[in-house]
Amino acid sequence: MSLTKNQFKLITSLQQKKYRQKNHLFVAEGTKVVNELLNSSLKLDQLFCVNDSEYKNIENKDLISEAVLKKISTLKSPNNVVAIFKMPEVLPLKKTGLILVLDAINDPGNLGTIIRLCDWFGIDQLVCSMKTVDCYNSKVVQATMGSLARVSIVYTDIEKYLMNTELPIFASLMDGENVYKSSLPKQGVLVMGNEANGISEAVLKLANNSISIPRFGGVQLTESLNVATATAILLSEFKRLT
Amino acid sequence: MSLTKNQFKLITSLQQKKYRQKNHLFVAEGTKVVNELLNSSLKLDQLFCVNDSEYKNIENKDLISEAVLKKISTLKSPNNVVAIFKMPEVLPLKKTGLILVLDAINDPGNLGTIIRLCDWFGIDQLVCSMKTVDCYNSKVVQATMGSLARVSIVYTDIEKYLMNTELPIFASLMDGENVYKSSLPKQGVLVMGNEANGISEAVLKLANNSISIPRFGGVQLTESLNVATATAILLSEFKRLT
Repeated sequence: MSLTKNQFKLITSLQQKKYRQKNHLFVAEGTKVVNELLNSSLKLDQLFCVNDSEYKNIENKDLISEAVLKKISTLKSPNNVVAIFKMPEVLPLKKTGLILVLDAINDPGNLGTIIRLCDWFGIDQLVCSMKTVDCYNSKVVQATMGSLARVSIVYTDIEKYLMNTELPIFASLMDGENVYKSSLPKQGVLVMGNEANGISEAVLKLANNSISIPRFGGVQLTESLNVATATAILLSEFKRLT
Repeated sequence: MSLTKNQFKLITSLQQKKYRQKNHLFVAEGTKVVNELLNSSLKLDQLFCVNDSEYKNIENKDLISEAVLKKISTLKSPNNVVAIFKMPEVLPLKKTGLILVLDAINDPGNLGTIIRLCDWFGIDQLVCSMKTVDCYNSKVVQATMGSLARVSIVYTDIEKYLMNTELPIFASLMDGENVYKSSLPKQGVLVMGNEANGISEAVLKLANNSISIPRFGGVQLTESLNVATATAILLSEFKRLT
């Protein structure tokens, strides 16, 4: 009913990006997320649970007490299971399709929501700048609800990526063209910027087009829509008539 | 540099809905949200700040120390100011326009995002069921970024409301009509359901139409889009060509 010192050390170390990258492992928690990932193409490394009725067929499994679960969990209300998964291999960047590029998204909840949106809308590739929060961060993993296994995510130098793509590039800006009046292609790159600072200048220079979601309320605001909400609306616009 | 006992008691009591309702007061925190509300139609009751350089002209003001700020704040990183505002008067329900009805939205972050969306899209009325989380809950107030002052929000018996409206009612469902192929009116009622259970049966019976955001990813999932994200896309669909 307990963990070895090494198991405990591994799980807690995986809360840090550098150990996740060193070990090519990440942690998922709770019945819902863990079960979705178990049913995906991802490979399990080890699983720890209080009640194993759902995990009878799993070999790399240890039973733990509620007290141990609480110790290794990052959640306020841990839910039966903590699992370590192997990071999927990073596939080569796709050059066609509808591609979403994130320029330094900071908030794990926003990235999690955006990964779920990519899954929903069948986005071919999610390209994240090196400054974007790590998609294996525990808060991101929990927010993705299993979508993490179905979306192709690459961290790379997005300036280089955008310089080399032949697809049209659409930058999401506060003062871009009205997206409802833009004619959007089936294949293209949509770039979303940082929560506070938007798209960086160097990246913006590489865009051929800019788009905005018009505001219908009376007051003019400096405040924009939340980036995850804006991504939802823009991806919907790209996909709605395909 | 400190608070009276009564001030301290009032602020902390306002963390609870029953005291907010009894006093018709609520709390906002941090420079950004407080300043937006100060510039709105809402009336200030009292303001407490560490540095008053931005609040020179405000009368009902007390200077406090960082230590006191930390005591009265609900934020992890309190930001200079905590203010008590008077709740606006509840205006009579509107019978025309584009109206959003929430059936038992639980999560404060979701309600906050939805209020921001109503502000952005100029929604005429937000009608919340009595089971929907209180819009003056501190987490909601912080998530709205000031939109709270610009959106007309009413808590009421939504079954009665829907029974009496003459507008067409659209229920957002997992298996409704493809929203991209539906012809949406300029005036109507959009109903969004609870995060886990969707729209309650009694409410669903009152809807004339159902709409869904189609999924483009390959896998069929039981998991739906987050309710705030789905609201973003559906409101965008209602407003995009008006």
